[in-house]
Amino acid sequence: MSDENTTHFGFETVNAADKAERVAGVFHSVAAKYDLMNDVMSGGIHRLWKKFTIELSGVRPGDRVLDIAGGTGDLTAKFARLVGDEGQVVLADINDSMLKVGRDKLVDKGFLGNVQYAQADAQFLPFPDNTFDCITIAFGLRNVTDKDMALAAMNRVLKPGGRLLVLEFSKPQNSLLEKAYDLYSFNVLPMMGKLITQDADSYRYLAESIRMHPDQQTLKGMMENAGFAQCRYYNMTGGIVALHKGTKA
Amino acid sequence: MSDENTTHFGFETVNAADKAERVAGVFHSVAAKYDLMNDVMSGGIHRLWKKFTIELSGVRPGDRVLDIAGGTGDLTAKFARLVGDEGQVVLADINDSMLKVGRDKLVDKGFLGNVQYAQADAQFLPFPDNTFDCITIAFGLRNVTDKDMALAAMNRVLKPGGRLLVLEFSKPQNSLLEKAYDLYSFNVLPMMGKLITQDADSYRYLAESIRMHPDQQTLKGMMENAGFAQCRYYNMTGGIVALHKGTKA
Repeated sequence: MSDENTTHFGFETVNAADKAERVAGVFHSVAAKYDLMNDVMSGGIHRLWKKFTIELSGVRPGDRVLDIAGGTGDLTAKFARLVGDEGQVVLADINDSMLKVGRDKLVDKGFLGNVQYAQADAQFLPFPDNTFDCITIAFGLRNVTDKDMALAAMNRVLKPGGRLLVLEFSKPQNSLLEKAYDLYSFNVLPMMGKLITQDADSYRYLAESIRMHPDQQTLKGMMENAGFAQCRYYNMTGGIVALHKGTKA
Repeated sequence: MSDENTTHFGFETVNAADKAERVAGVFHSVAAKYDLMNDVMSGGIHRLWKKFTIELSGVRPGDRVLDIAGGTGDLTAKFARLVGDEGQVVLADINDSMLKVGRDKLVDKGFLGNVQYAQADAQFLPFPDNTFDCITIAFGLRNVTDKDMALAAMNRVLKPGGRLLVLEFSKPQNSLLEKAYDLYSFNVLPMMGKLITQDADSYRYLAESIRMHPDQQTLKGMMENAGFAQCRYYNMTGGIVALHKGTKA
């Protein structure tokens, strides 16, 4: 295998052509309990990470927002309130199991009219150039096979001046925190996954894929390479999670 | 106030006559997110505690089981499978919010016919003498105003030879574990309660009420005083939880 044709699935080196299918298997498996596990694994703190993302988005009534890898719709629900009847939010996810859970949840909560759904690959976004005021991808970029291609696609469909927000696991900024986090990720987390979902492997993949993801500075550089200006990031929970923001020039 | 007329609501000393109402307030508040919070607070481990309880119950097809303070029905669902069509499980809870959540969940899961529901106070069980083969009370006895009265009532409605299983928080058996557990209970737990349910107070009550509950030996003595024979207990998770078992002589 040449380097160009391989990538990572957690700690495993796989053919780039196979990664999407492996990732799909994980999310088909976890979709039904995705929201529950987010609360269990983070002790509810993922709610704060998402709240900060919304606050930094600057989304206003009438805006068009694309929530990539939007899964069960946590961000979409908040954006739908912000953009109002004149605005539009597209909940996109490559995984139809996740998209179905998200759509059912949002419809049950009464979100209708200004929310649309698209089963879409972040690398090949099915939208015209210069469409959105804001794009978010929360805990999704890590799972994309070609991240540079995805960032370029996001840049293309953003309006000039539009903002990209990437919420993703990142590198803890303190070695003691990192040790505790490793212990938690590789021991506690798969155990909880097994107890609650009877699926330890998916949560082992989660922990591994986080370690393989570019750190704060690297991701910032990738965003700049994809054409974003004013790139910066905000560490949360000691860098366990980082929010990267960039603007289409 | 004389000692006879006071009791504890968490760390607070309250009139015995007021405790039930205070406890009711907690459970009306937490009912909708009770299952979620159990998974979040215990990292899913409450599932193992309940599994062990079922295993020790010795419940067989045709048995009649009473699940007191059965709340959202985790144990009732498992018992309903064990007793089969010829058996009967009564899910009892003093709190109608909890009982409604439990009933909705069980009906949605298809449990019909061999499950009945009763809004009942553990101190005044509305059943004839010698009715049940097995009684469970999981994470409920702690909240009962007069625990001795409740244990006597359980003894009365059990058949001779019937088993009582009390699953309840207890005293950690290791001082280091106890320190970590205190830190978790009084700092992390109310924070998670606030993030997920917007109700930190109920989870502060949970932590406090656990500390005020009789320890392993004391509860064993109370069961013996109520007429139970062959009383013993099993520590789980280092004594954070204990399962007490007794048999009606």
